[in-house]
Amino acid sequence: MSSTFGTLFKITTFGESHGRAVGVVVDGCPPRMPLSEADIQGQLDRRRPGQSKLTTDRDEADRVTILSGVENGLTLGTPVAMSVANRDQRPGDYKTMSNIPRPSHADYTYQMKYGIRAASGGGRSSARETIGRVAAGAVAESFLANTWGVEIVAWVSAVGEVQAPEPDTEAMSRPAVDKTPIRCPHPETAETMTHAVAQARDTADSLGGIVSCVCRNLPPGLGEPVFDKAEAMLAQAMLSIPATKGFEIGSGFCGSTMRGSGHNDPFVAKGKRLGTATNFSGGIQGGITNGEPVIFRVAFKPPATIGMAQETADFNGLPVRLEAKGRHDPCVVPRAVPIVEAMAALVFADLALRQKMRS
Amino acid sequence: MSSTFGTLFKITTFGESHGRAVGVVVDGCPPRMPLSEADIQGQLDRRRPGQSKLTTDRDEADRVTILSGVENGLTLGTPVAMSVANRDQRPGDYKTMSNIPRPSHADYTYQMKYGIRAASGGGRSSARETIGRVAAGAVAESFLANTWGVEIVAWVSAVGEVQAPEPDTEAMSRPAVDKTPIRCPHPETAETMTHAVAQARDTADSLGGIVSCVCRNLPPGLGEPVFDKAEAMLAQAMLSIPATKGFEIGSGFCGSTMRGSGHNDPFVAKGKRLGTATNFSGGIQGGITNGEPVIFRVAFKPPATIGMAQETADFNGLPVRLEAKGRHDPCVVPRAVPIVEAMAALVFADLALRQKMRS
Amino acid sequence: MSSTFGTLFKITTFGESHGRAVGVVVDGCPPRMPLSEADIQGQLDRRRPGQSKLTTDRDEADRVTILSGVENGLTLGTPVAMSVANRDQRPGDYKTMSNIPRPSHADYTYQMKYGIRAASGGGRSSARETIGRVAAGAVAESFLANTWGVEIVAWVSAVGEVQAPEPDTEAMSRPAVDKTPIRCPHPETAETMTHAVAQARDTADSLGGIVSCVCRNLPPGLGEPVFDKAEAMLAQAMLSIPATKGFEIGSGFCGSTMRGSGHNDPFVAKGKRLGTATNFSGGIQGGITNGEPVIFRVAFKPPATIGMAQETADFNGLPVRLEAKGRHDPCVVPRAVPIVEAMAALVFADLALRQKMRS
Amino acid sequence: MSSTFGTLFKITTFGESHGRAVGVVVDGCPPRMPLSEADIQGQLDRRRPGQSKLTTDRDEADRVTILSGVENGLTLGTPVAMSVANRDQRPGDYKTMSNIPRPSHADYTYQMKYGIRAASGGGRSSARETIGRVAAGAVAESFLANTWGVEIVAWVSAVGEVQAPEPDTEAMSRPAVDKTPIRCPHPETAETMTHAVAQARDTADSLGGIVSCVCRNLPPGLGEPVFDKAEAMLAQAMLSIPATKGFEIGSGFCGSTMRGSGHNDPFVAKGKRLGTATNFSGGIQGGITNGEPVIFRVAFKPPATIGMAQETADFNGLPVRLEAKGRHDPCVVPRAVPIVEAMAALVFADLALRQKMRS
Repeated sequence: MSSTFGTLFKITTFGESHGRAVGVVVDGCPPRMPLSEADIQGQLDRRRPGQSKLTTDRDEADRVTILSGVENGLTLGTPVAMSVANRDQRPGDYKTMSNIPRPSHADYTYQMKYGIRAASGGGRSSARETIGRVAAGAVAESFLANTWGVEIVAWVSAVGEVQAPEPDTEAMSRPAVDKTPIRCPHPETAETMTHAVAQARDTADSLGGIVSCVCRNLPPGLGEPVFDKAEAMLAQAMLSIPATKGFEIGSGFCGSTMRGSGHNDPFVAKGKRLGTATNFSGGIQGGITNGEPVIFRVAFKPPATIGMAQETADFNGLPVRLEAKGRHDPCVVPRAVPIVEAMAALVFADLALRQKMRS
Repeated sequence: MSSTFGTLFKITTFGESHGRAVGVVVDGCPPRMPLSEADIQGQLDRRRPGQSKLTTDRDEADRVTILSGVENGLTLGTPVAMSVANRDQRPGDYKTMSNIPRPSHADYTYQMKYGIRAASGGGRSSARETIGRVAAGAVAESFLANTWGVEIVAWVSAVGEVQAPEPDTEAMSRPAVDKTPIRCPHPETAETMTHAVAQARDTADSLGGIVSCVCRNLPPGLGEPVFDKAEAMLAQAMLSIPATKGFEIGSGFCGSTMRGSGHNDPFVAKGKRLGTATNFSGGIQGGITNGEPVIFRVAFKPPATIGMAQETADFNGLPVRLEAKGRHDPCVVPRAVPIVEAMAALVFADLALRQKMRS
Repeated sequence: MSSTFGTLFKITTFGESHGRAVGVVVDGCPPRMPLSEADIQGQLDRRRPGQSKLTTDRDEADRVTILSGVENGLTLGTPVAMSVANRDQRPGDYKTMSNIPRPSHADYTYQMKYGIRAASGGGRSSARETIGRVAAGAVAESFLANTWGVEIVAWVSAVGEVQAPEPDTEAMSRPAVDKTPIRCPHPETAETMTHAVAQARDTADSLGGIVSCVCRNLPPGLGEPVFDKAEAMLAQAMLSIPATKGFEIGSGFCGSTMRGSGHNDPFVAKGKRLGTATNFSGGIQGGITNGEPVIFRVAFKPPATIGMAQETADFNGLPVRLEAKGRHDPCVVPRAVPIVEAMAALVFADLALRQKMRS
Repeated sequence: MSSTFGTLFKITTFGESHGRAVGVVVDGCPPRMPLSEADIQGQLDRRRPGQSKLTTDRDEADRVTILSGVENGLTLGTPVAMSVANRDQRPGDYKTMSNIPRPSHADYTYQMKYGIRAASGGGRSSARETIGRVAAGAVAESFLANTWGVEIVAWVSAVGEVQAPEPDTEAMSRPAVDKTPIRCPHPETAETMTHAVAQARDTADSLGGIVSCVCRNLPPGLGEPVFDKAEAMLAQAMLSIPATKGFEIGSGFCGSTMRGSGHNDPFVAKGKRLGTATNFSGGIQGGITNGEPVIFRVAFKPPATIGMAQETADFNGLPVRLEAKGRHDPCVVPRAVPIVEAMAALVFADLALRQKMRS
């Protein structure tokens, strides 16, 4: 188990899906920074299930409590511990599965690794684990916004085979993203996506999708070659989110089909600074931010929990027919939006502190 | 600068492209493991430039020397330091560029981050930096092969728009991959790729591509949720390789277009162990290996150094026309094959030790 | 701020003296280990103030709550988060000091480092911070006891100028230590020490002391040369406890006055294993445990908070006369006993996991 | 094996006593810092054996070579790798010992831990391992001196039972220390010490001693509570040096005998800054430097290698009489002086970068 992320802006998350609480300790948060529970609750609410008919019914207030590190509305530079109680515990739903590892879940691998696993829910592999990330990410984002005016906006760019057209990343904003519960800022595509999810839900199936993200106003110089390059840290951060299958920065996989003459980003003067005319690099060159927007995309698989029956095997290798009960999301990408933003904020807050020590 | 990778099997690389030497220190290598320079040289030779007309002319023997950690052909459990001298230093080639940051290179970002950069070549952002990775990776691979019979094979699955058909990952072998200098195991595709690269070279341009990789015989249980999941560590490792733009595991981005009913991997008995009938998960579930082959793909952009002239700006923002001289690869993916294998070996050697402490 | 300790058995503590809660997250605790709040409460009670007239009056139940990582009385291998509420908040006591950094406290240095500090109490430099250490240490101790029968016993070997005679470390036990509130297992010395503390208290002064510790049944092989040698990790751990000024292992400073012929520990057969006839090494050679008891001593300064008036300067450099109010311990070493034990357990649990991965 | 030290100013050492080379990689060294081999050679020469009749005859030039990270006399911000060849290899001397673990050496524990050990010399537990530390320390010291004018001076304050009188730490300088080969700045004591060492040598015995150290001009604010407090990092660093048995900061063990009223350091105005009238704290309060000189002491045991015969047991537990051959120091503390300085510089360079990121 490795529940700590970051070198200087370091977070440690804890909590199972159906235990007493989930939460996080943020160690290394700069001092004298305004911070209150209200700054954190907003992103938690965006992550919360039960926001629309499209997501799971599990309804938990997910109210965050700051346990330490803040006094009179200012951070002390000491660890900021935050906790969210688990109110809605329904261990019963999963009991019948105990000897059947759910396909494409973590039941089998946790059992193989630890020789034990949480009796109910996904334990630590549950989406509920991401609450600590989102709470910590809100703190990181606050630091980045206060210091450089950094803006991080993620959105749903694909649901199943429905893809949104290329967006205007300069203008992209959270209010625009939140206009629809599906969190695709392109209205017509959002509607098509919503229908696709509804159709998947009605057939007791699930759908994958893609979350795109832009980070604006990052200062140049962030990223620590050769192993902690900015895109490498983003890649680790994103692939650590449950259900992710891929990451690409800038031109991504599409860039592999291009020629150098078309892919190179020529430099141009942009006011006082040097910028690039195109941004196939995705705001990062040689592992270091160049001052252009950082743009990346994350692929999410369709949720493994589906209503329809599945033919599989139990832990003894005997064929069984599995029918899932309980709550499940037919599509997680809308709720993944604040999680992707949180992980991006955590990566850049850490890289920013690591670079700051050099100036 | 962060040149250390790994928690228990920990490597630290060093060296600029045109300095005295490049190399690596491997700390945490298990003791009593047979190891000699011959075990390492093979992969270094596969990485070496000048293997065919398709790659750069820079010809260096790249002979590795083990400086410590091995006695009488066995590792001592102490740091294994390895060094490769830089023989072919041609600083002159790059002198005319000194005030012009090369487009999509690291000149600009290194200058912004450090306020200084290597006068010639890419310095630390050069492909030559990967020598230390490949040497260390050979040690890691040796450990994995000795202990579990792990086999790691990477190959070129796409060059520009030329894509190889879906391969038989069970049978994939390094000899099959090395049959052609382009390192695509599908002969007809290899020929088409070779022509594409030749054509790019003739037009003073460059081409990107994709390297695929399979890791067989990994024991189940490797990967440390929630932040050091196996796919997250692979993603960081791969995106830390120069010129990479994307990573996907198992179904990858394609998986985002699927439905859960088609994407879930049903369990089936495989001899004594539980396996999966399909492998959309790519051998990893919940961040932990499940015993199936780990399969992933890495996207490489076209090399930034091209022969044709480019319109760009110098450090002062003034428009200039840049013409590169010196040696350059029109396509790096064939040489990236052993680098991808090395980084995969380093990830799994570290995760294996982290898991072993639990048994 | 660096509130994380350990590489594999990793703890992160949080909490200020007068905030909402203090606590700890233990990440890397082995799975399937019996654990309940009762296993932890015992050491917390030994650390708790208000156990006798010799210690501060601050009376808090210090009841620990396990928030995660344990199910049905067994650890899951996931993070064990533990929290203790702060009930007894008396911020008023310290208000008059706000512009006067207390001599030999951390007020001045926290202010210089963070530009802010907790308004009341010592914040993070308070002895209350050690609650998280003791809770985590109880988990570590449980792991070491279950696996190797490790026994860790600390005791008060000096208070001020009163020193206990050389003890029988083989027979030393916690019940023997706890026979008197001063926690010196030698009854006559305990009485003298108790008088010395009472006398210091009556003169509104404070006393330092020494805590000794023995760790029995540790397997040989623990310790990671060259920087994480067992004695080096112990030294860091002990010097990170508030109010400590020195650490010595085995012969310690006295060993520096000896000759090699007298200091060397000759090997002798001890049953099946090789032992040493003497133990000037303190159970560690070359940074690695040798199977003999690990013995070390930790020096504590007299508490900085004293009742008598002190001439000092305020933050502006102006001379002031400071008179402390509120609760204070005239001597902290009795309560430091479980803290020293906890830190020793944390060091060896981590080194044990780091060594286990090698076997 | 853990051969890496530091979080941001991070070093990794390598090399056995009789292998091909010993050395170090310094990762995280600030860029644009003047650095040449001459800056490093001086301290290596002070560490080198064969400086006087008092130390071992092993004569090696110990010439350092910078392999990377420096160009045109300036650091690039990239890893600075440094190597020193092992010229004087005498494996034969130790051959007869192969089945006898030398008392109070690391032969037994390395064998137990790794199941193998270097056939000759101490391998990684040899004093020769410290070459990498001293080379890296010289780089760290250069950074601290350039940035804040930090001065670090260590000296021999005791040899066996001969103790030097309390020195003037404000005036202490390396030239004063180096006036005698014993490196005690008090001339008469130096003479007595020299006689004591000669007498130990003549009786084929060895002597321990104490190295004291002062670090002046450190800025306030260095140290990362709660686990990486400045004194905790110093303690780890010093106890990781071969042959050390104890560490104390400021008043140290003596402080444990004092009363708070005498031990507290009252604040006084010192020019513009706040200082303390006394310095029992040793320049560190709450784990953070306060701007006063940091003063500490390190105890060294007598070298384990002695000429006189010793009764011990072989690996099978059979009694044997061991007579050592080869070179040995009767007293290592004079040569330990630059090692202590190096480790202090490494601790403060790292803490300085960790604090800088906050400003």
